[in-house]
Formats: sequence, structure tokens, C-alpha cells
Amino acid sequence: MNGNRFGRLFQIATYGESHGPSMGVVISGCPAGLEIEQAAIQEELDRRKPGQSHISTSRDEPDRVEIQSGVQDGFTTGTPIGLTIQNKDARSGKYEPFITAPRPSHGDFTYSAKFGTRNWGGGGRSSARETVNWVAAGAVAKQILAHEGIEIRAHVSRIGDVESPPVTFEAMGEHTEDTDVRCAHPETAAEMREVTEKYQKHGDSIGGAVSFEIQGVPRGLGAPRFEAVEARLGKAMLSVPATTAFEIGLGRDAATVSGLDRNDEWEFDENDDPTPIENDHGGVEGGITTGEPIYGEVTLHAPTSIPSKQTTVDWESGEEKTVQVTGRHDPVLPPRAVPVVEAMAALTITDFMLLSGRINPDRLDGQPGEYDTDYHPSRPE
Amino acid sequence: MNGNRFGRLFQIATYGESHGPSMGVVISGCPAGLEIEQAAIQEELDRRKPGQSHISTSRDEPDRVEIQSGVQDGFTTGTPIGLTIQNKDARSGKYEPFITAPRPSHGDFTYSAKFGTRNWGGGGRSSARETVNWVAAGAVAKQILAHEGIEIRAHVSRIGDVESPPVTFEAMGEHTEDTDVRCAHPETAAEMREVTEKYQKHGDSIGGAVSFEIQGVPRGLGAPRFEAVEARLGKAMLSVPATTAFEIGLGRDAATVSGLDRNDEWEFDENDDPTPIENDHGGVEGGITTGEPIYGEVTLHAPTSIPSKQTTVDWESGEEKTVQVTGRHDPVLPPRAVPVVEAMAALTITDFMLLSGRINPDRLDGQPGEYDTDYHPSRPE
Amino acid sequence: MNGNRFGRLFQIATYGESHGPSMGVVISGCPAGLEIEQAAIQEELDRRKPGQSHISTSRDEPDRVEIQSGVQDGFTTGTPIGLTIQNKDARSGKYEPFITAPRPSHGDFTYSAKFGTRNWGGGGRSSARETVNWVAAGAVAKQILAHEGIEIRAHVSRIGDVESPPVTFEAMGEHTEDTDVRCAHPETAAEMREVTEKYQKHGDSIGGAVSFEIQGVPRGLGAPRFEAVEARLGKAMLSVPATTAFEIGLGRDAATVSGLDRNDEWEFDENDDPTPIENDHGGVEGGITTGEPIYGEVTLHAPTSIPSKQTTVDWESGEEKTVQVTGRHDPVLPPRAVPVVEAMAALTITDFMLLSGRINPDRLDGQPGEYDTDYHPSRPE
Amino acid sequence: MNGNRFGRLFQIATYGESHGPSMGVVISGCPAGLEIEQAAIQEELDRRKPGQSHISTSRDEPDRVEIQSGVQDGFTTGTPIGLTIQNKDARSGKYEPFITAPRPSHGDFTYSAKFGTRNWGGGGRSSARETVNWVAAGAVAKQILAHEGIEIRAHVSRIGDVESPPVTFEAMGEHTEDTDVRCAHPETAAEMREVTEKYQKHGDSIGGAVSFEIQGVPRGLGAPRFEAVEARLGKAMLSVPATTAFEIGLGRDAATVSGLDRNDEWEFDENDDPTPIENDHGGVEGGITTGEPIYGEVTLHAPTSIPSKQTTVDWESGEEKTVQVTGRHDPVLPPRAVPVVEAMAALTITDFMLLSGRINPDRLDGQPGEYDTDYHPSRPE
Repeated sequence: MNGNRFGRLFQIATYGESHGPSMGVVISGCPAGLEIEQAAIQEELDRRKPGQSHISTSRDEPDRVEIQSGVQDGFTTGTPIGLTIQNKDARSGKYEPFITAPRPSHGDFTYSAKFGTRNWGGGGRSSARETVNWVAAGAVAKQILAHEGIEIRAHVSRIGDVESPPVTFEAMGEHTEDTDVRCAHPETAAEMREVTEKYQKHGDSIGGAVSFEIQGVPRGLGAPRFEAVEARLGKAMLSVPATTAFEIGLGRDAATVSGLDRNDEWEFDENDDPTPIENDHGGVEGGITTGEPIYGEVTLHAPTSIPSKQTTVDWESGEEKTVQVTGRHDPVLPPRAVPVVEAMAALTITDFMLLSGRINPDRLDGQPGEYDTDYHPSRPE
Repeated sequence: MNGNRFGRLFQIATYGESHGPSMGVVISGCPAGLEIEQAAIQEELDRRKPGQSHISTSRDEPDRVEIQSGVQDGFTTGTPIGLTIQNKDARSGKYEPFITAPRPSHGDFTYSAKFGTRNWGGGGRSSARETVNWVAAGAVAKQILAHEGIEIRAHVSRIGDVESPPVTFEAMGEHTEDTDVRCAHPETAAEMREVTEKYQKHGDSIGGAVSFEIQGVPRGLGAPRFEAVEARLGKAMLSVPATTAFEIGLGRDAATVSGLDRNDEWEFDENDDPTPIENDHGGVEGGITTGEPIYGEVTLHAPTSIPSKQTTVDWESGEEKTVQVTGRHDPVLPPRAVPVVEAMAALTITDFMLLSGRINPDRLDGQPGEYDTDYHPSRPE
Repeated sequence: MNGNRFGRLFQIATYGESHGPSMGVVISGCPAGLEIEQAAIQEELDRRKPGQSHISTSRDEPDRVEIQSGVQDGFTTGTPIGLTIQNKDARSGKYEPFITAPRPSHGDFTYSAKFGTRNWGGGGRSSARETVNWVAAGAVAKQILAHEGIEIRAHVSRIGDVESPPVTFEAMGEHTEDTDVRCAHPETAAEMREVTEKYQKHGDSIGGAVSFEIQGVPRGLGAPRFEAVEARLGKAMLSVPATTAFEIGLGRDAATVSGLDRNDEWEFDENDDPTPIENDHGGVEGGITTGEPIYGEVTLHAPTSIPSKQTTVDWESGEEKTVQVTGRHDPVLPPRAVPVVEAMAALTITDFMLLSGRINPDRLDGQPGEYDTDYHPSRPE
Repeated sequence: MNGNRFGRLFQIATYGESHGPSMGVVISGCPAGLEIEQAAIQEELDRRKPGQSHISTSRDEPDRVEIQSGVQDGFTTGTPIGLTIQNKDARSGKYEPFITAPRPSHGDFTYSAKFGTRNWGGGGRSSARETVNWVAAGAVAKQILAHEGIEIRAHVSRIGDVESPPVTFEAMGEHTEDTDVRCAHPETAAEMREVTEKYQKHGDSIGGAVSFEIQGVPRGLGAPRFEAVEARLGKAMLSVPATTAFEIGLGRDAATVSGLDRNDEWEFDENDDPTPIENDHGGVEGGITTGEPIYGEVTLHAPTSIPSKQTTVDWESGEEKTVQVTGRHDPVLPPRAVPVVEAMAALTITDFMLLSGRINPDRLDGQPGEYDTDYHPSRPE
């Protein structure tokens, strides 16, 4: 049963296990004529990369992306883009105790129950290492969106009981990368770090959340109801490992807000177009974008890999067992999830831009049926 | 751009506008041999039906479902099931003021901006009337799931600041239908009714939430990561008009819970199979079901149609305008959303049962390749 | 298992059995702003309709299409179009002998073997009556294509040993409807009628073929390799009941032609664009359209319903049996298949026009994000 | 615009250009527990490989497949299988003359017109080198089918005017690989070789056809009408570069056969099940398999790359030009297309086996929900 594909016109298909030879993603439907900056893809991978600080796993992966197809002389050709990333630092030995004795709240048992077997090294296919593929593909999507004036930013809005005050889009651009907790509000970032270290010191871990905002989205994206923008964004985010909630606009708090308070009245903008005066709706009305920023929040539960002693059962021996997960693990997920959330938003919005005809599916610039070779250089000097 | 299809193997495609001649849904992929009780479909439609009490719209629709195909002598034949529901009580006149002057926080402007036009009567395609199709199809799905021992229940867990204490699955079965607010906790139901009437009296409306629980789901459903059970369920629920949050398991609260607290340790069940001791995970680990109940919550914002005066602009006249939405509207959405949430859960889980091979896609009972005519009666006496 | 959906962006989902209450089709993805002429849909249905002459079945169906949604004041709104056609003249009694004794070369046994049951009246779902849905949807697609300057024509090119000489696109426009055999070459039409009547008189039937040509297709459609134009067209045509061959360009004869003979050299056209000098390639090179006419042929085997005595077995009694299929049946299929072939071509090319960005998926004219209500009239006078 | 994906439950997504670093294919939906013989994949690739004889291109590619994921200890794990094949012997220089001067009947112009650019080296994405991905994935599918007792064989049935007499399934198994023309009828093979060399000697090329037969298919596969077995098989085969016709059963010849002649009467088989006495229907009735062998033919036009002088135009210089295609090219396609046709048949039938529930989508053997680690060895000794 397959679940490794995402998107309708801008599609990805991924492969790879935590401890296999390589990870890979095939991007289908990227229009021709996009100037691909490999460095920009790499930069996103570096943000997601393990080993960035002592509050993230110390696994050492260079995570070098290699472009196998679909790009020529630095520009996309409209044909499938193959990206691969080698796996280097795999130490499977540590996972042997869990082959038939599932770690609490991991996918160990569910994978084995579903398939009768599983690749157990490093969590195999269920490892969050899979998200390296998403970030690589999302980096391509981000470059398309940049071309269209659309930008996506995210930051860590909650860790445990520490909640960031609302931050502006500009603040996210400036401050998210300031610290390894990736909260764009510097004082809160310091607190978050503190609380994380407290849990880490006790052999424990803690949950949190990532806020995102998307600016520059034109009005008219989305196909109600089953392809409503919030439905597709929600699916994207709830695919991220460890996600337990997706909220858009006022989110869960909308339950306590009255219609009069939440309703956004209309005024004319500088082009004499109707525009909502406020944005309690989160950029989507009736499943379709209004042109206002889309914003929301994604909650991630505490990492399930913790060094404390826990109880499990061994289905081979039929005995109860104590396990300790002593690998290299993050004590909190949101900091490394920030680029993943951005990537999934980018993949979703790019797909909508294609589906709505805002981006031509064959070529980013120029008219269909033109064949100018100067469109981008492809001939040897 | 199309967005009226849901599901991979158990699929629906819908049509219909609020004030058009009929609503309709084509169900594809329903296995043969299911005994269809038309009364059971009708019962679900009656739950969703407008005009049930003075806290719901007084629009009077009999909502009689007519089976056009795919069922013979009361059993499905494995071919597409066409269901239609006539629209009867459409009074479009009241919607004329909004043709070029969008109601606050409705889809009026976004539909017009997307398509350049829209069916404006009664909200047209953006009306929640569309969900009658979902409930009809969901009723078929529920009958399949009942055959497999899977049951879905929901109730209203929040209206404004009034929050229901947790209720059992049994309580939902017994008490949800007791009152028109559909909260399974009787005392809370009374409070919810009170708070709703307070908003209604002031020409306002209020938000709320629906909790759902699914029991009897086998372990092994779901296809990580993009077809993870929570991702698909989330997409289903975020397709419901007015949804602003989807939560699974601990949901948003998972942010404040530590790994040690949230992790569910393993024990053996009565069949000597590993089973989680608790269910903080909400029935899904690694995107795949554990066999524990799946539970979560869906938040719906306050109805946007309120009789109070609000400001908008008329894009034809170029002038500001005051609007009052005086149609027949619900002051709160969750009570009527309960059967819709159940329907979307049923459609999603049925699809997963087919995708995992737990239900044979061609016939509910019997082996592929058998052709016994006694499988169900189809011959005239 | 579902197989009633066709298309990616311009999609249809159908329902209905030969002797059920109605046939229906949901069209998703039709852009807004198309002026729908209901009479034009009806005209296509009338071409397909049974009872047109004594060489077609005498079943009497008025085949009146009813538009349920997606059209307002004569223009599409961009939302799903629901079309229904009532079944009137169903006489199931004649089919009772075949419930457990399958007719030779019909789907009786395969449907029963697959689903364990079947709707046996009139062939149920396996009846060619299903194609009424396709022709209705195809008529909408044809109106989109007409708006883009694309036209599709077909005629009967072979019946038994009688083969039509090649005819021009113009001849197909002028003469196809001249006779009930629908061959655009009048002398051949007379011969075809003669040979058909000969088989009919002997209680037999005969095979034949339909040629089609598509003009006005822009260059650049198609997505190699699995969405190559010929692959998608082939799938469309091989969905038509009784089809045994699909050919494009030189088709089967290409096997005996050398590269030098078949290769089409290039010249400049009036716009100084490269254009193939000849069209042995059939309008598609490398899976992508060249701008030349697309042409091909579809072979349909002889109707399997014949009044002559044939042998079968009854799986209930376990005995051999003689059957005679005495219903109302066509002695040859291509004449009534002409509008079906045209419809399937129209659905396919419309989908490609959307997929390539040549037609905006949201609205036929105007720019995305515009909301002019004068786009088409939708307000009561 | 994407067109690199095939299949619904057993899906492939491919990438790669003729002269890029590597070709690759991601297989999604392969059940767990299949013993993968890498040698068997390699064997199929070797059959397709260039440079096998002087009637095929002399390009020298070792075509070593590397398994990147989804297989552990020789068995599939149910997760995506990544396969890559390095490109070694790329000599792009020869293709420079054609950058703006399209070769007759190649995809040079159509790709450039569609995307505004193209990877021109070796034909880039339009090269038949892409089929290496299909053969690799098809080899996996073949191993699944072998496990279910289904076997696919093909051979060259026509080259130019030389037509093979019908051969048995056994003959195809024994003789197809005897010669480099891959005709299972030895005398005809000799003639075919002769005629091919004649064309080759004159700087020309010639068309031909491949016949295929599939045995062991259970009755009940296929989902009429748009997923009819012949529709899906046709799409598969018409995706193969250079295909101009697809026929099933009597194919094109069915036009001249009467209903009485073609209709297949029924008898009881050894299990007292109805079975067609003959197989003029080609294994499919009403779009669903009867259990009889599926057979058909695929026509491929003459290779378009020929060393003779041909005329084209250069869209940059605006001048007419003479081209000679002097690379390493096959003078006839069917011999190397044999494994490609088999692969596409295997991918299609495997998908149908999953879609019909005949193969469990999660695991090849065992029951859903079992988690026995002895299912296959995955633990270090």
C-alpha cells in the first residue's frame, strides 16, 4: 500500500529508509525555465540537518543533494527532477533490542503488524529522516514561489508551557535562525531553550508547536470542498511525523469567538478591489484564498525516543521487558520541524498555483507553443 | 478546477448548489453484497436536516434520498451508486443584495474572484447544503463499517466557553441525540443551549467543537507518510465548511506534555498480542492504526450569517454598504455538524479498509471469482 | 472496485444501469463562463440514441438530458455539472433466461464472477447504455473545444469487408450524418448498408471501424510517456464497449513502412515556425502534439447479441442450454459508436488543454482574480 | 506537466534523461514479503540493453541496477523501492546539430515547443532510454506475478512484410531468446533478420510488431469501463515510444468477422465452472477477465533515426538544412521492445491484482495484522 506521493500537478514521490544507501525524491510537474540554485536547496537541507546543536541529535549527515535529472545548465527543463541524498552515518546496532520489543509510541509495532516485517535499523521508513526528501523538494517549490512573489516563513511558537507572543512576518525572517530553538522572539527563545534542557537533563522530552505564515498568495486558490486550501494544507502538515493538531486562522480558539467578533468586514483596497479589513479568517474563505496572508499552527508531540527506562513486551519471547532508547535523539521536535513545515506549505501552495492556472504547467515564462532556444542557454559555447 | 471528489478506492463525486434542482453523489468502489437499508441513509439525512429545532435554520427540506443505481433487491452490486436528493424550499430572493456586495467572511467574494461569477442563490455551491451529499454517502460507508465491526460516534464537546467533560463511547451512543445541541453530557447540553440562545438573541452566533471516536478499527491501516491516518482524517474534517482546527489524540495539548507522560508503554492483550497500555496516541502510531480507538476533535468557527448590521462594499457601485443576513441560519454549527463529522470519518476509514485489503474491493463476502447467484437474491420469484 | 471515472482536470464520474431509474454523470473541472447550449447536448444524445433506423435497436428512449447544477443563466459557473437522463423503455423480462446462463461473449459471466452478483436487466452496468453519459459529457467538452477552435469528426470507415476510401475532414462534416450507417463516403455507405442487412437477415451481426480526426489542436499537448497523447486517446477509445483495436497515424500499417517513407521532414509555415511537411505521424511526436491533425481508427467487433441459436451452460442447473438473444439489438456497432468516439476524443483533448495551461482551469475568459459580474449575466432583471 | 507516473496501487514514478547522471524509478505499493532476486531484474535489463548485436545500437551501457530502499535481506518490506541505474556511455556531441534543427519525426520540436527548451543530448527525456526504468520495475512486477502463477511472454510477430505464423505460449518461452530478432518462429526469425539488414544497408529502417500473451490471469480483473483491462493495457502499450497500434484478441481483424463466428460459446471446465470454448475474445469480456489467456499485438513504427540525408529547418538561422542522424541506432524496434512490452503488461496486471483484492496490498503472504518476525529473516545472526 502506497503513501509516498504528494500533490496533483506538482507531485513528489519519495523513497528511502533511515539506514539504507540513499534517500531520494522524484519531482514531477515542475515547469521549465526555473533557475535552480543548488545552494538554495542545500541551505534548506542544512537547516533540517541533524547535529546542529546539543539540543538536536548528534547524527552526522552531510546531506549533500545530487541532481540526477530535469535540470540543464542551471534551469529546469520541465521533465522529472530526480534528487538523491546519500545516507552516511548509520549505526543500526543500537536498534537490535527493539526488533520484537516495540519502543513505546513509536511505529515499531504498527509497521510490523501492517507489513509482517519492517526495516528496523534507525526506525527504517518510519524515521523522520524521510523528511529530508520533503525539504529538498520543498526547496525547489520555494524557488518557484519566490518567482511568483510568494513567501513562507515559520518559527517555533510553543515549547511546553512556554508560548511566544505573536511575531510579525518580518520578525520571522530576521530572528527565526538566530538560535537553535528557532523561535523568532528572542526572549522567548531563551526560555524555550531552558525548558528543553530541563526535560533533556531528566531523560525526558517535551512537545511544542510551529507557527507558519504565507504571504503573497493571490486570491482564488483552492477547490472546495475536498481540495479546500485548509484541507490540503492540513493534510500536508498532518503528514509530518509527530503532528497532533493543525490549526488555521483562529484555530482551536475560534470555538470561543462570536460571529460578530470573528467576521471580517470588507473595504476597498488601493486597486478598488474588495479586501477584508481584518484577517481572523486566516487567508481562506469558503475554501478559497482571499489574498490575505494564510497563517496557522502545527502542534508536535514530545519525541518518543527518550533515555528513561520504559516498559514494553517482546512478542518473540512473550516476556515483559525494560527498554532505554539511547540513540542520538532530539529532546524537542519543533526547531528541526520549522524547515519541514515550510517545505510542506511550499509543496501545497505550488500545487495550487498550478491547479489554478496561475503558473503555466509547462513553462514558467513565455507562451505555450514557443520554442525559443534563448529561453535559457542550453547549447555548448 | 475540480475539488468535488474524495477517496482513493471508496470514492465519491458530488454535485449540486443550494438552490439548484437537486443534490447528488456518485459512490464508486462500494463492494457488492452489502445490504443497503435506505431507512438508515434517511435517518442520517434527518439528523443533518435543517429545521430540527429553533436553534437551527428553519429551511424546510424533506431531504428524501433516491437510489438511482448500484443497488438491486436491497443489495449493492459493486457498480457505482447514484444518490440524488431534490431541493425543495429555495428562496433565492433574499440573496440578491449580496450579488456584488459580499457578506463578511462568506465565500461570496472568493468564489466570484476565482470563477468570475457564481451561483449566488443561497450561497450556491459554497453552501453547507453540499454536506447532504456527504452524509448520504457516509451512511453507506457506515453500513460497510458496521459489517466489519467498526463504529463511529461524535458529539458536541464545546460551544463558546462551555466545554463538555470527557464522555465515554457508550455515553455518545446513548445521549448525543437526546437534545438538539447533541452534547452527550446532559448537564453540559443544557448550558450549551443557554449560551447559544444568548448569542442568538443578540443577533450574533458562536463557535464550538465536535469530538469523535472510532472503535473497532483493526491495527495496520494507513500508508505513511502522505496517507497517514491522521493526515487523511484531517483532510476529511478540514473539508467540512467552517472548520478551523483538527486534533488527534491529545491534539493541541500535546505541546505541553512530556515524552514520559505521553508515551504509551506496551503490555500483552488477551491474545498475547502487544497492545498499548494507554491511548494518549489517539489510535495511530507512525501513521498506522494500533487497534486502539481513534479519537479527536474538530473546531468550527461561529456561523458567519448573522442578522446584525455589518459593513461591506459593493464592487459594482463602488460604495460602502450595510448588510444584514436575514435568511434562515444556524446560530451555532456543531450540533448539525455531528452527522457530517461522522460521515467524513466513515468515508475515510472505509477507504483505508479497502486500501489495506481488509475489505475485498469487489465483494463484501465470498471469494473473488465465485459467481453464486444465491449470494443475494436477484431473480424474480 | 471503481472504474467509472475519467480524466485528470476535466473529470467525469458516471452512474447508471440499463434498466435503472436514471443515468447520470458528474463533470468536474469545467471552467466558468462557457455558454452551454442544452440543445447542442441534446443533439449529440439524439445521434447516439437507439431507434434511429431499422439497422439499430428499436428501444425507444427519448434521452432527455436534465442539467442539475453547475450552469446558471446558460453559462457554466466553474462548479460541478450534474447531468441526468431518465431511463424509460426498460423491458427486463427478456433477460431472465440469462441470469445463470451467460450469453456468449457478453459480460454476463465476468460481472457475476467478479462481484458474485449482477444487475442482469438489459445487461445492467455492462450495457452500452452507459455511453449516453459519455456523450452528454462529451457534448460539454466539444463546446469548450469549439471555443478554442478545435473540432473533432468521425465516420464509419469499415463494415465487414467494405472499406471506405480516405475522406477529408470536410467530407466528414458534410456527409457523415447523411445516412444511418454514418459513412462519409456516400457510395461506400450504400454498400455498408447492404452488407449489414445481409448479416442481419441471417440472424447474425458484423464488425467494423470508426475513423476520427481532430483539427485545430495546438502543438505542445501531452505529457510523455504515460500521459502521451496517443496513450490517453487509446485508453479513452479502448474504454468504448466492443473495441478491439486502436490505431493512430499509420496505425497497424506502420509495421510495413520504412523510416525514410514514414519520417516527416520539416519546413517553415506561414509564421516561420517549423511544421512537418506530411502527417504520417498522426499529429503526435514523442507523445506531444505537433499541431498537425490527430487521426486514427477504432475497431469494434460484431455485436454479440444475435438471434441465432447458440450454446451456453447454466451454472445453477449444471446443464448445457441453447440461447437466443431476441431483444432489440444493433446488427453493427460503428454507426452508433461515431458520437461515442467523438465524445471520448473531446473529453481527452479538453483534459490536455487544461493540463497544458492552454485553457484556464477556473474560467474560460478573463484573468484569474477578476470578479466582474458582467462576465455573464447572473442577476435577475 | 507531469506524465512520469503509472499505476494506481502498484505505482511507478520515473526520472532520467539519456545523457544525465542516472536513471531511476520509485516503485510504490509493492507488498511486503516478496523475495527479490536482483539477478532476475538484471536479466531483464540485459534483454533490453543496447549493444546486444549488430542490429541494435552499439551504445555500451552495463545497466547495473542498484536497490536503494524497500528491500531487506532479499525480501521487500512493503515500503517504496528505489532503483537507480547509472548512465555511462553518453556522447552528446553528435546531437549538437539538432538543437534548433529538429530531426524528422523525433520529439525534438515538440519538446522544445512545449517547454521552450529541452535536454537535447541523446534525445534527453524523449529517448527510449527511459524504458530501462520500466523494465526494472516490470521485473519486480513479474516476480510478484510469478508468485501468483501468472506469466507474460512476448515475441516479434512482424518486421516489415515478414509476418510470423501464430506461435504457442510454449514456443515463446523456448525460442524468443534464440536470436537477436526475438521471433519465436525460427524460420521467420531468419527472414526477419534478412529484411532488417536490407533496410539497414540502405541507410533506412523498418517497422514491426510485438505479440504478447498473458497466462494464469484469474477471472474477475478489471473495472469497467474506464479501467477495463483492454483500456489499461492499451494505455500501457501506447506509452511505449514509437507505438502506433494496440490490438487485443482479434484486434483490427475483428472488423471483418461476424458475430456468429466471433462469439465464444460456453462449456463447463473441470471444476464445473463456465468457461469459453474458444478465445476469440482475447481474455476479456465486458472489460473484465474471463480467465482465458489475454493476448494482443503492439505495432511499432520504423526507427526515426536513420543515416540517410533528410531535410529539416533551423529555427534559429531560419534556413533549410540537411541532416543525417549518425548516432548508434536500432534499424528496427520490436526486438528490443519485447522486454518493454512484457514489463508494461506486468505493471498493468500487477496493479489489477492489487485493485481486485487478489493480492493483499500490504503483504504477499500471511494475514493483515500479523507481525511474526519469522515472516522473513531480518535480524542479524
